[in-house]
Amino acid sequence: MLDSTLADQTQAFLDDFGTALEQGDIGKACELFQDDCYWRDLVTFTWNLKTIEGKDAVADMLTHQLATTKPKGWKLAEGEIPSEEGGVTTAWIQFETEAAQGYGLLRLKDGKVWTLLTTMVELKGHEEPAGFNRPLGAKHGAGKHRETWAEERARELAELGHTTQPYCLIIGGGQGGIAMGARLRQLGVPTIIIEKNARPGDSWRNRYKSLALHDPVWYDHLPYIKFPENWPVFTPKDKLGDWLEMYTKVMELNYWTDTIAKSASFDAEKQEWIVVVDRDGEEITLRPKQLVMATGMSGKKRMPDFPGMDSFKGVQQHSSEHDGPDQWAGKRVVVVGSNNSAHDICAALWEHDADVTMLQRSSTHIVRSDSLMEIGLGALYSEEAVRNGVTTEKADLIFASLPYRILHEFQIPAYEAMKERDKEFYDGLEKAGFWLDWGDDGSGLFMKYLRRGSGYYIDVGASQLIIDGKVKLKRGQVKALDETGVILDDGTHLAADLVVYATGYNSMNGWVADLMGQDMADKLGKCWGLGSDTTKDPGPWEGEQRNMWKPTQVPNLWMHGGNLHQSRHYSQFLALQIKARMEDIATPVYGLQDVHHLN
Amino acid sequence: MLDSTLADQTQAFLDDFGTALEQGDIGKACELFQDDCYWRDLVTFTWNLKTIEGKDAVADMLTHQLATTKPKGWKLAEGEIPSEEGGVTTAWIQFETEAAQGYGLLRLKDGKVWTLLTTMVELKGHEEPAGFNRPLGAKHGAGKHRETWAEERARELAELGHTTQPYCLIIGGGQGGIAMGARLRQLGVPTIIIEKNARPGDSWRNRYKSLALHDPVWYDHLPYIKFPENWPVFTPKDKLGDWLEMYTKVMELNYWTDTIAKSASFDAEKQEWIVVVDRDGEEITLRPKQLVMATGMSGKKRMPDFPGMDSFKGVQQHSSEHDGPDQWAGKRVVVVGSNNSAHDICAALWEHDADVTMLQRSSTHIVRSDSLMEIGLGALYSEEAVRNGVTTEKADLIFASLPYRILHEFQIPAYEAMKERDKEFYDGLEKAGFWLDWGDDGSGLFMKYLRRGSGYYIDVGASQLIIDGKVKLKRGQVKALDETGVILDDGTHLAADLVVYATGYNSMNGWVADLMGQDMADKLGKCWGLGSDTTKDPGPWEGEQRNMWKPTQVPNLWMHGGNLHQSRHYSQFLALQIKARMEDIATPVYGLQDVHHLN
Repeated sequence: MLDSTLADQTQAFLDDFGTALEQGDIGKACELFQDDCYWRDLVTFTWNLKTIEGKDAVADMLTHQLATTKPKGWKLAEGEIPSEEGGVTTAWIQFETEAAQGYGLLRLKDGKVWTLLTTMVELKGHEEPAGFNRPLGAKHGAGKHRETWAEERARELAELGHTTQPYCLIIGGGQGGIAMGARLRQLGVPTIIIEKNARPGDSWRNRYKSLALHDPVWYDHLPYIKFPENWPVFTPKDKLGDWLEMYTKVMELNYWTDTIAKSASFDAEKQEWIVVVDRDGEEITLRPKQLVMATGMSGKKRMPDFPGMDSFKGVQQHSSEHDGPDQWAGKRVVVVGSNNSAHDICAALWEHDADVTMLQRSSTHIVRSDSLMEIGLGALYSEEAVRNGVTTEKADLIFASLPYRILHEFQIPAYEAMKERDKEFYDGLEKAGFWLDWGDDGSGLFMKYLRRGSGYYIDVGASQLIIDGKVKLKRGQVKALDETGVILDDGTHLAADLVVYATGYNSMNGWVADLMGQDMADKLGKCWGLGSDTTKDPGPWEGEQRNMWKPTQVPNLWMHGGNLHQSRHYSQFLALQIKARMEDIATPVYGLQDVHHLN
Repeated sequence: MLDSTLADQTQAFLDDFGTALEQGDIGKACELFQDDCYWRDLVTFTWNLKTIEGKDAVADMLTHQLATTKPKGWKLAEGEIPSEEGGVTTAWIQFETEAAQGYGLLRLKDGKVWTLLTTMVELKGHEEPAGFNRPLGAKHGAGKHRETWAEERARELAELGHTTQPYCLIIGGGQGGIAMGARLRQLGVPTIIIEKNARPGDSWRNRYKSLALHDPVWYDHLPYIKFPENWPVFTPKDKLGDWLEMYTKVMELNYWTDTIAKSASFDAEKQEWIVVVDRDGEEITLRPKQLVMATGMSGKKRMPDFPGMDSFKGVQQHSSEHDGPDQWAGKRVVVVGSNNSAHDICAALWEHDADVTMLQRSSTHIVRSDSLMEIGLGALYSEEAVRNGVTTEKADLIFASLPYRILHEFQIPAYEAMKERDKEFYDGLEKAGFWLDWGDDGSGLFMKYLRRGSGYYIDVGASQLIIDGKVKLKRGQVKALDETGVILDDGTHLAADLVVYATGYNSMNGWVADLMGQDMADKLGKCWGLGSDTTKDPGPWEGEQRNMWKPTQVPNLWMHGGNLHQSRHYSQFLALQIKARMEDIATPVYGLQDVHHLN
């Protein structure tokens, strides 16, 4: 009975809200928001990814967008009932706009909006062929000279990029490019994905051999085909490679392997890109209308420039090129860096009897994998969550509904709990000389990931090796290299046969500079980060990840990247933005972001 | 409230039943059955696939099996509530035995069992690693010289069949072998699948080019990984081939391509098979304990032996070898046969401008695809069914719960309805001279499939070509061939450049004869058919499909086959039977079938 009342109350609220919007009464609509409110819109009202903060900002957005959005039909989502906890009513909602079907999550405090998430599900008239609308496959009836599925597919592969042009070109065929390509294919957007490696999945296979996902399976699903029930919690890299390869095949992606983009420029007259690619030795010029960079948010390696690197007689590798521990038994290895890759590589080298030293140059945030799973992710992404009805899709939306401005406030208590739970572990690390941090404001791993994309290790075993002194730890800065090793700023000399630079990655912006020139990269500006004014994430506040999955100052250029979760979730919204443009649906962008930082 | 009472009543019944069984009071247990009852057991009580018909038979089975089965814990299945319709109460149930967890479907009439389905879900202590028990994947902690997933897998592939022996060998890598291999892998049974073709899926790819599944997607799922929401209703053959190939890879099956079994014999002393295979030119002797024939229930082509075949100057092909219509434009083709393949091949040839004649030698059952989907399958296997909560797994159990003895009674009305609905269509066919039937008792397609595995066409378009005279139809018998064509018993001469023999397939028993000799094949006897004493399914009544997925008169030899539905559903029970033997769990077989027909 309580739920029924709550449902009635919430539906009444939605009726009021819908009526105000349909009447164009922005003042009345805004009265239904708390002063201190957050409306995160993923493409439905703003044709942007935008968190609108505060009632005045809501009024401004509606003033610009309401007339073209024409929202209506606000109601409690089918099969869902609202819940109430701590004075906050939470409800799954659905609605529609002139162009699209929407779905969202509403939180009310004192009968007014505290947070509102609105997301685009599908464009009207351009729904994906699935479920009741799935394709027939076999061609019933009879007709002269009909093509079979295999013949059609072979023709498409032969023609696209040659006699016909893709509407969209995706540069980079890792999980980001693949998930995006799958969405676009389902939306009927002719797309080519180009990938420098020989097989889909090689971007994973080519990494160091001990690599496995640090995120658990429930967090990692691709769109359309979920990992099965028997899939491991933490996918080993080669197994993920195989999955991506099969996915690319069965989702019928136009995926060009052994292909490198050599240059790209925008033909302003024809409003299309001119992209020159090398496909296994053959130079081909593609002319897509839309260009998606999916080259990896962690794809452009950052190599340091220390004096004497050229005089070092041993081997030097960036972590992304490290070939694994097998040949380094009995050899001395210095690993520069103390984040995920550094830890994984150190542990594997120790396992194969190398003499390993980790060089820590700055503080690092460490959480133990099991604690992170239980405390940090369990409620949304776990077997328990799935059994409780929190599907991956729902979890994504719940996570998306927490405004970035206050997300750290939800995160801090979780990390406090981990600190307490694993006190002995952290004491051991500090005793071993490890320099720990918890993020500038104690908000831990996810915020670090969202703000700067670096600075942490999810412990799966290497920390104990450091605590036990099996992997040696040194703190300091590299002054130089000489013929035999690494010289630190305190004068220490670390003799080495191999130096691994686990020194991280540069902004995706660097890919744009390489491909289109520095001017274009500067016009685009820095990618990633929220503008939180914390370490490596300079302000001003942007409130969404800079330049990711949304319109930028460079028309028809889109940045896509991140972990499997982001590749899955944001590809939905990026694909809909691109499809709308292909179909000449009006896409008035609200709040296009400015460029504040060049890289 | 009604449901709650029904649930209470049904649980009370289960309590009585459970108590009688636990007390070993077979008389009391039998009193809870109608005289006219059916208990279909899939492995839990009988270690067999067995339909026990009538109260006396139930008493006999329990007398033999109750003491070792030790069933208990009979209750309404979690999350399910019973329903009542037309005096029949239907309830999903769960229970356990000494060895296993069971699940079933109970139908009560007047408070007594009318039908009971009991199926084995998992062996206690040998549950599949899935869901909460899924493998960790990454290896947390650290250890000297640990293997990575890729290294372990490479070692397994290098060793199995060479320095270590598979517990089970599956001959044939189509959907049957693949589904079975996947189940066995999840159960930890070391298994090799051998396949004569170069790639998984080639058994489909190599067929005539217009082939698509005639069964819809909801009926076709493999275990563990379902076809996605966007998958076509009727999968084109090459697309299915790609799916099977990816499935084989990501399920980590030990799948030997280009491999042919040359001979197999049973070493009675060591209680293992000696199977000599040719793997891409290399002769390897395998010594598995269990041998599964998955060479295809429709795999052994039946070629007719007409006088003059060797004098014909044109091309002769069995339908399974037909290479498609492309090269036959303007040529004359005679297709001998009038079932599925014959129709598909005729239509494709007409589409490519061949001059085609279908030769109908016996009556054929035809149903239109859309009618079959709606009337025949819709309640169990359709998008509608899925939305109504009838998952494929549930549909399989509901279908399995209908006793073969009376299944035709449920089928007849559906085909009566189709006959009515498509009257004009059937009139057109008869007018065109087509010789129709509806099965000996009017029970239609499924019964024909289960009884004889042949004799029908699911119309996807070819029938209209026959009605329109575009594909010519001739009725009669082949008397002989001469240099230029086919001579019929009425003296007609059909000139031909190509003769396609769509003359069907022989019993899987023939594979056994080829591989192990005729004695072994005779010891095994005929495979498939129910013993219904209808055309091509001679009695006596067996009540289950002869020799399929269950113990036979040849120990350690198992026959697996059928469509995608059967490959999925019965592989579960066959895999559990094999796993139990590997783990030395007692498997006292009740009602081992006799051999009544040699082939």
